[in-house]
Amino acid sequence: MTNHETRFRVRYAETDQMGVVYYANYFIWMELGRAEYFRAVGGRYKDMEDSDGILLAVVDAQCRYLFPARYDEEIAVRTTIVKANRRMVNFEYEIRDPVVDRALARGSTKHIFLNREMKPVKLLKKYFSLFGITGGPSID
Amino acid sequence: MTNHETRFRVRYAETDQMGVVYYANYFIWMELGRAEYFRAVGGRYKDMEDSDGILLAVVDAQCRYLFPARYDEEIAVRTTIVKANRRMVNFEYEIRDPVVDRALARGSTKHIFLNREMKPVKLLKKYFSLFGITGGPSID
Amino acid sequence: MTNHETRFRVRYAETDQMGVVYYANYFIWMELGRAEYFRAVGGRYKDMEDSDGILLAVVDAQCRYLFPARYDEEIAVRTTIVKANRRMVNFEYEIRDPVVDRALARGSTKHIFLNREMKPVKLLKKYFSLFGITGGPSID
Amino acid sequence: MTNHETRFRVRYAETDQMGVVYYANYFIWMELGRAEYFRAVGGRYKDMEDSDGILLAVVDAQCRYLFPARYDEEIAVRTTIVKANRRMVNFEYEIRDPVVDRALARGSTKHIFLNREMKPVKLLKKYFSLFGITGGPSID
Repeated sequence: MTNHETRFRVRYAETDQMGVVYYANYFIWMELGRAEYFRAVGGRYKDMEDSDGILLAVVDAQCRYLFPARYDEEIAVRTTIVKANRRMVNFEYEIRDPVVDRALARGSTKHIFLNREMKPVKLLKKYFSLFGITGGPSID
Repeated sequence: MTNHETRFRVRYAETDQMGVVYYANYFIWMELGRAEYFRAVGGRYKDMEDSDGILLAVVDAQCRYLFPARYDEEIAVRTTIVKANRRMVNFEYEIRDPVVDRALARGSTKHIFLNREMKPVKLLKKYFSLFGITGGPSID
Repeated sequence: MTNHETRFRVRYAETDQMGVVYYANYFIWMELGRAEYFRAVGGRYKDMEDSDGILLAVVDAQCRYLFPARYDEEIAVRTTIVKANRRMVNFEYEIRDPVVDRALARGSTKHIFLNREMKPVKLLKKYFSLFGITGGPSID
Repeated sequence: MTNHETRFRVRYAETDQMGVVYYANYFIWMELGRAEYFRAVGGRYKDMEDSDGILLAVVDAQCRYLFPARYDEEIAVRTTIVKANRRMVNFEYEIRDPVVDRALARGSTKHIFLNREMKPVKLLKKYFSLFGITGGPSID
């Protein structure tokens, strides 16, 4: 499957009194990774929500922290879809310091597709390409 | 006008690498002040949104910082409505350290009432009491 | 091992445009669970940092989301230490809606003890009771 | 005085259940404006903290909200220093939608210089250029 990298700098707001980035903020960075992944493959998550009311709801999230990230440092998030079908998608992330070229954290999220009433739905075919779903007869 | 005090402890997530609470978080504390103010006068902001689609949209916010707030300290927010009519409401806040009994910050927010299409609306009469609006002939 | 429950209400700031609590914020709630756990067993995490420069650094965090949490709802976090020794501690959390009495999410975090230079250290004996470490000859 | 513009996209985490960006997050965007302002004039706020222990502490912050910002939209923050001397600095910000070219919010922050003990200090001469301080005889 394809992968994509996005870059940004650590915000002061993201640090805590330990002098490093607060652990929950890595999950926000994974969200940025997902958004830029969709943009890189030619779509926008925003459009799925706006046009068709399809929500990408997180059912599981995990992060392993290797080295602390610090204020104003550049961060690179590499996002990969490791599994996807009409009902769910699994992302993996590597959060890197691109300057010294090392991984700071590795994480994953699992999502299901919901409608606005928060009921599970099957992904519309027009969005298959966003998730790298090939859509053979076995997909349904 | 009436006022109300709510209390909570500083979260680790709310601190930054300066070792004190990050300045934007005081505005979240003002939001807690508003929510507990409504509850104290017998209503819930949530119900206004859910039942009647009335949103309390911020048009102006201000905070003056006097002393830093630190992790795990108890914080008291005193919330007062200083002006309210069918179209807008003005809150003032004193954010206090109740242990040493001193003000840490003072702030204010001004809000207008919007519907779900983000258009200004006049507040329904049933909510007047929440805002201390007396509702004479001049109010409209 | 002992466990502890803490309660609070969902903040407006914690919701996102899906109308439910943003997924990263559950990890902040786990932090509240840890802080109140320590207070319940007679100590304060703050004191460990302030007096002895011992930091509780997260090395792994995980959350499984079962039902969405919504604005202004009461939330209960049950925090348990499932494993602890001089070098690490493992917390588990159940995030509950205490009104309808159901689990909204289950999570865990694993931490190591660091000094201010971000180097691993062994926990001082005076803090053993906070973590339920019994401290037999095999602990070191 | 000089000014600088920085751009980024609205994060999902920054929205709330009103479907727009939560009001406190505009103050985080002002922080991004400050950081990129310093970088544009050839310095880094991080270095002031790291090398000389000079903290830029907020004493006043204000924001006027004109139009809501929405998820995934591009945001431009124009940052200007309107006043600066050895003891304080005043920033002004215009937060814009660069696509439809209109202001979404206007804000300001006032800061004083503190040392690590949170005591007011006078800015070192080597940082004057960062703040556009010309440093005549009257500055002290």
